[in-house]
Amino acid sequence: MQLAIVLFDRFTALDAVGPYETLGRLPDAEVVFVAEQAGPVRTDSGNLALVAEKTLAEVPRPDVLVVPGGPGQTPQMANRALLDWIRAADAASTWTTSVCTGSLLLAAAGLLDGRRATSHWLALDELRRYGAEPTGERVVTDGKYVTAAGVSAGIDMGLALLGRIAGDAVAQSVQLAIEYDPEPPYDAGSPDRAPAEAVELLRSRSRFILGREQPS
Amino acid sequence: MQLAIVLFDRFTALDAVGPYETLGRLPDAEVVFVAEQAGPVRTDSGNLALVAEKTLAEVPRPDVLVVPGGPGQTPQMANRALLDWIRAADAASTWTTSVCTGSLLLAAAGLLDGRRATSHWLALDELRRYGAEPTGERVVTDGKYVTAAGVSAGIDMGLALLGRIAGDAVAQSVQLAIEYDPEPPYDAGSPDRAPAEAVELLRSRSRFILGREQPS
Repeated sequence: MQLAIVLFDRFTALDAVGPYETLGRLPDAEVVFVAEQAGPVRTDSGNLALVAEKTLAEVPRPDVLVVPGGPGQTPQMANRALLDWIRAADAASTWTTSVCTGSLLLAAAGLLDGRRATSHWLALDELRRYGAEPTGERVVTDGKYVTAAGVSAGIDMGLALLGRIAGDAVAQSVQLAIEYDPEPPYDAGSPDRAPAEAVELLRSRSRFILGREQPS
Repeated sequence: MQLAIVLFDRFTALDAVGPYETLGRLPDAEVVFVAEQAGPVRTDSGNLALVAEKTLAEVPRPDVLVVPGGPGQTPQMANRALLDWIRAADAASTWTTSVCTGSLLLAAAGLLDGRRATSHWLALDELRRYGAEPTGERVVTDGKYVTAAGVSAGIDMGLALLGRIAGDAVAQSVQLAIEYDPEPPYDAGSPDRAPAEAVELLRSRSRFILGREQPS
């Protein structure tokens, strides 16, 4: 089974690394990081690059497709080469997945029309504008499409899908291997329970987070 | 404030990326990935490389030092150049931190003698042999030393330390930005609660996980 994780300029590192450290531990899976060009691809912070081992053209038919998000998503939503590859890969995939605003790319490719899906909490309205039916769940499965909420939700998505593909015992041993027994120091991970000031702060920056503006 | 995240051959990606996506969002922080040589550094799976932007020598005095773990830790524990750099960086640091078996490197550098600390659950005995006093907590702070349990615990560590450095409000807004509201699909992230079969499977592979053997 071949698992392709797509990288593009200004992706969010944890969006890609969460599924890699969970779903990517599927026994005997081939995991490949792909991008338009092979080589280093820089993340949203500008401080880190992950290396794409292969070009999109070299990996035309992955069994599992993982699309991360990032604040550079809006330019990518007009990236014809990337969207064409996603559509073609999806046509042959067993599972097509996304983390965070990666679902906006799936939607822009026309893959989520009328489907239940999710995204970063700040991007749910945008996801609806592109034809999907956003839900408030952390991981949403509709047919072969599995979408996760913001950034860290890719870990939960990866474990859940690993369980579907390889069985509970494999997914549980991976969860134990990465000691995923979360103890967040605050109860601030959701807009329903975070302090109102944090929600307002992020809403005020959402045009940046959604990639429509550069940070000042 | 300068935050240095150290990379070395066969590190575990999420050990480095968890603190990067939390602590690394400290406002105005300079985050730099360092290694003995600048350039791509390959992770434990062999499928991914992260790019070290600078050499150890170019970043001699970070304010915050982050040491990830990985199954290649035992060779690194005999890496004189790396341990010397860790010791020298620690002498000037405000905070010295680790994720997973990164604490074995801190201990091998002589920094955890008699200190409360933690590591991946499979490495706690090894940590004790190197002079530390392991605890069962997920994040352990002893003076300026902050150590985290296995792999995914670097997210909790990063948020907790971010709160100490920048205040609760900043840490909460970062938790909300990365939507860290975990929903693991199983309760298998700790050896106390995971299925016995998963615990036994990983114990049987622990010599590999601790880096003393190559996988067959």
